[in-house]
Amino acid sequence: MSFLARCDGFPRHETRLRVRYGETDQMGVVYHANYLVWMEIGRVELVRSLGFNYKELEQVKGVYLSVIEANCRYLYPARYDEEIVVETAMVRSNVRMVEFTYRVLSADSERLLAEGRTKHIWLNRELRPTRLPEDYRQLVLPE
Amino acid sequence: MSFLARCDGFPRHETRLRVRYGETDQMGVVYHANYLVWMEIGRVELVRSLGFNYKELEQVKGVYLSVIEANCRYLYPARYDEEIVVETAMVRSNVRMVEFTYRVLSADSERLLAEGRTKHIWLNRELRPTRLPEDYRQLVLPE
Amino acid sequence: MSFLARCDGFPRHETRLRVRYGETDQMGVVYHANYLVWMEIGRVELVRSLGFNYKELEQVKGVYLSVIEANCRYLYPARYDEEIVVETAMVRSNVRMVEFTYRVLSADSERLLAEGRTKHIWLNRELRPTRLPEDYRQLVLPE
Amino acid sequence: MSFLARCDGFPRHETRLRVRYGETDQMGVVYHANYLVWMEIGRVELVRSLGFNYKELEQVKGVYLSVIEANCRYLYPARYDEEIVVETAMVRSNVRMVEFTYRVLSADSERLLAEGRTKHIWLNRELRPTRLPEDYRQLVLPE
Repeated sequence: MSFLARCDGFPRHETRLRVRYGETDQMGVVYHANYLVWMEIGRVELVRSLGFNYKELEQVKGVYLSVIEANCRYLYPARYDEEIVVETAMVRSNVRMVEFTYRVLSADSERLLAEGRTKHIWLNRELRPTRLPEDYRQLVLPE
Repeated sequence: MSFLARCDGFPRHETRLRVRYGETDQMGVVYHANYLVWMEIGRVELVRSLGFNYKELEQVKGVYLSVIEANCRYLYPARYDEEIVVETAMVRSNVRMVEFTYRVLSADSERLLAEGRTKHIWLNRELRPTRLPEDYRQLVLPE
Repeated sequence: MSFLARCDGFPRHETRLRVRYGETDQMGVVYHANYLVWMEIGRVELVRSLGFNYKELEQVKGVYLSVIEANCRYLYPARYDEEIVVETAMVRSNVRMVEFTYRVLSADSERLLAEGRTKHIWLNRELRPTRLPEDYRQLVLPE
Repeated sequence: MSFLARCDGFPRHETRLRVRYGETDQMGVVYHANYLVWMEIGRVELVRSLGFNYKELEQVKGVYLSVIEANCRYLYPARYDEEIVVETAMVRSNVRMVEFTYRVLSADSERLLAEGRTKHIWLNRELRPTRLPEDYRQLVLPE
């Protein structure tokens, strides 16, 4: 259901989900803000596939991955009960920030539904910018 | 836009909100889980009207109001852009727990849309049951 | 990942999901309204396992399953990234209404996190009560 | 609580809301996807202030305003219970599309929390691109 490849030097991951009823709106399609939720699922699963325990990073180290920018282009509406593929790539990563790109597709038709990009910085418990702790770096930083 | 009355000895409050687009689903009406969100707005505004600063209670005292039970009966669907009235009553309150009832109405038609009830206990930062700090008691406990 | 059994004559189903970041709140646990969303995932997967295509029922027949009552007891908080099991049972079903019960558990600890119950009626496109179309009945009605 | 001005030829509007508990996440601040929900509230109130009944447009004319692009830069976190100001400007509008920009501020500190931009096209009931009906044009199109 998912794979990990380091094509072009970028960590990539593919995750799947099914559209929930509550994610639709009265237009009969998925409400646009929910694509940002799906993109988050994509990046969480990407870093998990790299051996990175984000939950532990928050709890033990008090370091948080905060969104500083999010962009999404909506190409075709997703519908209730549809199986969705989120392809995520970590296109930039250093001790201060991380950047991801996303492709959201229909699993059946393979039609591209949306494309996105998010930028993030690492924050400490006081929500001030910080550096990713050393023992996590080799997992997400290019050698 | 709101009032405070202690009818029957119960603190009561009325608050208003407008249905958001993202709160609807593809049935064309408000998604049922959102009524619980509205009931929360109702109880927050009720305790605020009593001079109770819930945000400060969390931050300074580390005391949280946790939901242990929620019930809702749905009578008539709320629709996008409709103005909604949430009538909240604090029907029970002691140092360990609080209970609220709610009536959700359409502001225009005054039609009753839903009725609900929630039970809560006070928790400390470790999410263990605790007692409401003394200096907050006179605000929400019957004399 | 899921199974179907007709213990006690009731159709049952078990489905799994992982807690999303956006489902937590500042108490550090899952926001209570999201359990209603999970219960919906449970009943959708239950009826799917019975060979019932709910999406088609809505689109082709114009028949909707509307929540008329929802109850939830919260026993222990669910946390970010935890794997959750939703056990759903269809405890009552006739041509006019359906009733489900739910148990929400932590997949790892098998601890019971919440219990719930929802009641539903079938509605037509005008959101008036209707009867479940004949060709769907044998799937969800006891013989 | 709100005003309408046509500075620089662009319709503008300011609307206020209070951060809901369920809008926070375990980082203790507002979950990032909710800013898109707030931006929607901003544009709905902007077009309402222009005398434009969006709900009626959907119901009577079967014309929908669909998001085709959304961007948000997050500058400073919004917190629970904070009063928020959403300043919306309609920076482009023709018979096929509309574009809005947003500034999200803290009402108390007047600190800028986020900036955003959304692009939209008009769709018909089949979710195909369409033109805004004539009788709505004078409300949102520059003379």
